[in-house]
Amino acid sequence: MKLKIDLNCDLGEAFGNYTFGGDQHILPLITSANIACGYHAGDEDVMNETVQLAKKNNISIGAHPGLPDLKGFGRRKMDLTPNEIYNLVIYQLGALSGFCKINHVKMMHVKPHGALYQMGARNKEIAHAIAQAVFDFDSNLIFVGLANTLLISEAELVGLKVASEVFADRRYEDDGQLVSRKKTDATITNTDEAIQQALKMVLENKVVSKNGKIIDLKADTICVHGDGKHALEFVTQIRNELMKEGIDIQSL
Amino acid sequence: MKLKIDLNCDLGEAFGNYTFGGDQHILPLITSANIACGYHAGDEDVMNETVQLAKKNNISIGAHPGLPDLKGFGRRKMDLTPNEIYNLVIYQLGALSGFCKINHVKMMHVKPHGALYQMGARNKEIAHAIAQAVFDFDSNLIFVGLANTLLISEAELVGLKVASEVFADRRYEDDGQLVSRKKTDATITNTDEAIQQALKMVLENKVVSKNGKIIDLKADTICVHGDGKHALEFVTQIRNELMKEGIDIQSL
Amino acid sequence: MKLKIDLNCDLGEAFGNYTFGGDQHILPLITSANIACGYHAGDEDVMNETVQLAKKNNISIGAHPGLPDLKGFGRRKMDLTPNEIYNLVIYQLGALSGFCKINHVKMMHVKPHGALYQMGARNKEIAHAIAQAVFDFDSNLIFVGLANTLLISEAELVGLKVASEVFADRRYEDDGQLVSRKKTDATITNTDEAIQQALKMVLENKVVSKNGKIIDLKADTICVHGDGKHALEFVTQIRNELMKEGIDIQSL
Amino acid sequence: MKLKIDLNCDLGEAFGNYTFGGDQHILPLITSANIACGYHAGDEDVMNETVQLAKKNNISIGAHPGLPDLKGFGRRKMDLTPNEIYNLVIYQLGALSGFCKINHVKMMHVKPHGALYQMGARNKEIAHAIAQAVFDFDSNLIFVGLANTLLISEAELVGLKVASEVFADRRYEDDGQLVSRKKTDATITNTDEAIQQALKMVLENKVVSKNGKIIDLKADTICVHGDGKHALEFVTQIRNELMKEGIDIQSL
Repeated sequence: MKLKIDLNCDLGEAFGNYTFGGDQHILPLITSANIACGYHAGDEDVMNETVQLAKKNNISIGAHPGLPDLKGFGRRKMDLTPNEIYNLVIYQLGALSGFCKINHVKMMHVKPHGALYQMGARNKEIAHAIAQAVFDFDSNLIFVGLANTLLISEAELVGLKVASEVFADRRYEDDGQLVSRKKTDATITNTDEAIQQALKMVLENKVVSKNGKIIDLKADTICVHGDGKHALEFVTQIRNELMKEGIDIQSL
Repeated sequence: MKLKIDLNCDLGEAFGNYTFGGDQHILPLITSANIACGYHAGDEDVMNETVQLAKKNNISIGAHPGLPDLKGFGRRKMDLTPNEIYNLVIYQLGALSGFCKINHVKMMHVKPHGALYQMGARNKEIAHAIAQAVFDFDSNLIFVGLANTLLISEAELVGLKVASEVFADRRYEDDGQLVSRKKTDATITNTDEAIQQALKMVLENKVVSKNGKIIDLKADTICVHGDGKHALEFVTQIRNELMKEGIDIQSL
Repeated sequence: MKLKIDLNCDLGEAFGNYTFGGDQHILPLITSANIACGYHAGDEDVMNETVQLAKKNNISIGAHPGLPDLKGFGRRKMDLTPNEIYNLVIYQLGALSGFCKINHVKMMHVKPHGALYQMGARNKEIAHAIAQAVFDFDSNLIFVGLANTLLISEAELVGLKVASEVFADRRYEDDGQLVSRKKTDATITNTDEAIQQALKMVLENKVVSKNGKIIDLKADTICVHGDGKHALEFVTQIRNELMKEGIDIQSL
Repeated sequence: MKLKIDLNCDLGEAFGNYTFGGDQHILPLITSANIACGYHAGDEDVMNETVQLAKKNNISIGAHPGLPDLKGFGRRKMDLTPNEIYNLVIYQLGALSGFCKINHVKMMHVKPHGALYQMGARNKEIAHAIAQAVFDFDSNLIFVGLANTLLISEAELVGLKVASEVFADRRYEDDGQLVSRKKTDATITNTDEAIQQALKMVLENKVVSKNGKIIDLKADTICVHGDGKHALEFVTQIRNELMKEGIDIQSL
């Protein structure tokens, strides 16, 4: 059986007069788009445009719900109850589904954003609230979460199909969590190293933690970024290397 | 054929720590609930609760989209493009539909709120943008707008079923528009007078303008309010008077 | 020397169309007003009115800065950097000082709100950031914080005058922190018990923790509430009992 | 007596994760900075940084209050009462003054932003509300408004010093108002033409309207922009041409 991998990217993160990222440039290089839903980024105009852009590029569309914190881009943890989290996920899925509906495309997956993703990866109640919201909204949606974490296990428990997300350019703790962005060694800046990490994850289902520990992980989708010239070059390179290895790049 | 009328009320207008209106008290008295969608009022928690409350009371559920102005409660006109209006209606319909979906109820109608309603009643492009959004989102939705105005005619043009809304306790201009709330004679404070106006609208399809002009208008639904003891008494009274006349009170 | 105590209350927490509390009723009963600054509650119109109301009642005016979370009323912890906290305190102090300026009154004190207060009471860096902002803005301001916590010690370290706040109707942990509102025994609902706690704090500078431990604490100001009929009766009662003991009720 | 002109630019319009403009590049070329105050753009972190940047470049600092509409960048007219406008100006001036205070710089001027500026230029009540707020906050502030409009006349009436603003690259209507940005001929894209217009305004106090009418206008300050490479080149050129004519470029 041929190996395959999805490349996903966060899109639609502009807001009002503010531009963000290079959505139109990254789209031809990826297979799944996670579209911001107006809480941590994005607005109704951006959402409509981004859904249309993804549709035109034949990219799989997913929702990217986040915390209600535009100022912090959804990256600052907030002490919300599971019920509050459940409701804000429903609201954002609903909002994006409106734009899917009018553009006659199907929402295929959901990936929580930023602090919501981090909180869900480490807290069972929060992971459950997010997953339950997704399931209740549409039990056919694929749930994208950090490989090896509570996001994946809780989503499976509620009955969702899941996709384990891996990062080419982020370092891993021994427990499989990402090294926090607050630490200096959070990201891998050397392109070759990042590509090697990606290949190892896809081909061997393994990653080496920052302390040298070999961790088993499933790799269904790699998170890539679209902002900046370097980011585009990196995605192009990683695509090429994956294809050279005979791996299919296709949506979930 | 028996005459019938719908009684609609704006609900779910609380926000966070702020309560508003007396939703649980008015619900048994009305037949349609217009639920705020988080722009001019309401939030995801309130929306979920309000949908559940309406469902429990077996009340017809509709969306009540408004301008993005919580501070002004959506009552301050904003100079938005038709495209911006189209998108903000889609966003809000989508968001509310999420809560309908998880609670297994159907969204039946849409009524624009406050300044959006007023702007649509007087501006063809805006009325069209709102109506087109509703149609594109779900062509089976009933569009509720001020009787005799562009809201109704534009909604019919795009192909929507419409419901003409009338007000028991608001005065009318000669052209059928409501007297602006900025004017001192905007509302009818005498209960008997308001009830007489309601009966005349439902039984004769006529209303007398503030200048004494007789205006023909269709009356499919009467807007009532749920905040305050007086409001509840008024709704009870108007219900009784309508039923005494043999009019059925039922949803659209 | 005669004992004295300040009674402070959070005011100006309405927002736009939403009312909150009974500011005009509580004002004659208190000596210090903590005015919300538009982040967790309040808006520019409410702020102006509240400053005028406090001035008319001859009440000492203070700022009540909070987290940027209107939905959560500033009660949900957010993971902000000390620099972000420093800046949001400056912004809010500046904004309120505008309304003090045009109304020719002096801002006398600052009391952080809700989660900001709780975070500062338990985290040295955050307490320092808040205190430094207050000091840099105006070194003559009195800093109001939870007695016996980092809020007080850090404010003293940066060079501010401080006022130790105590609660008549909240239970204390053994370490002097308030029992979290998430716990069932957070508040004292028996009026007599609350009054006894208040008197003990003012007369003896002691409070008994929920586990029976006697804690020393300074009591410069008691926090009271203005929402609801019961709250007003309680404040009236506590005033009377304090005065019966010969304690002066006066601002800081 | 030597002719002189001020060059002003809107700064500090970034928000949270969103960058905007090239503040650090334009600063050495201008003499006055209008700093956004968190309503239409800017936030507390950006404001602190921008005040520090302006101070370091020895640029005159002013407030740039706008409408509460981040999504629309304060460019969409909102139907606010004069009292609401008065209060939102006070709030924003207060907030910025907080950052001036902690950085030990003086706020020198105020220029309303976007739709607030446009509304004030054409509506006497609004112009008065803005000007009165500025006067009440600090009667020594210089009020910057569109030359020949109600902004200037109302500010003079309340007793403020005023500075008439002109635009090198915007076309004028016969009545001295700017051609609306909604029209295709709103801006002058030819650099030479823009420079000629600027020189004529400063040297002769005249501008030719889009219909060829010669309008007298006072030119105290020219509005320039800092976003984009072209903008910087244009400012450099206009500076050079003004200096060649022996005109002093200095703050108000």
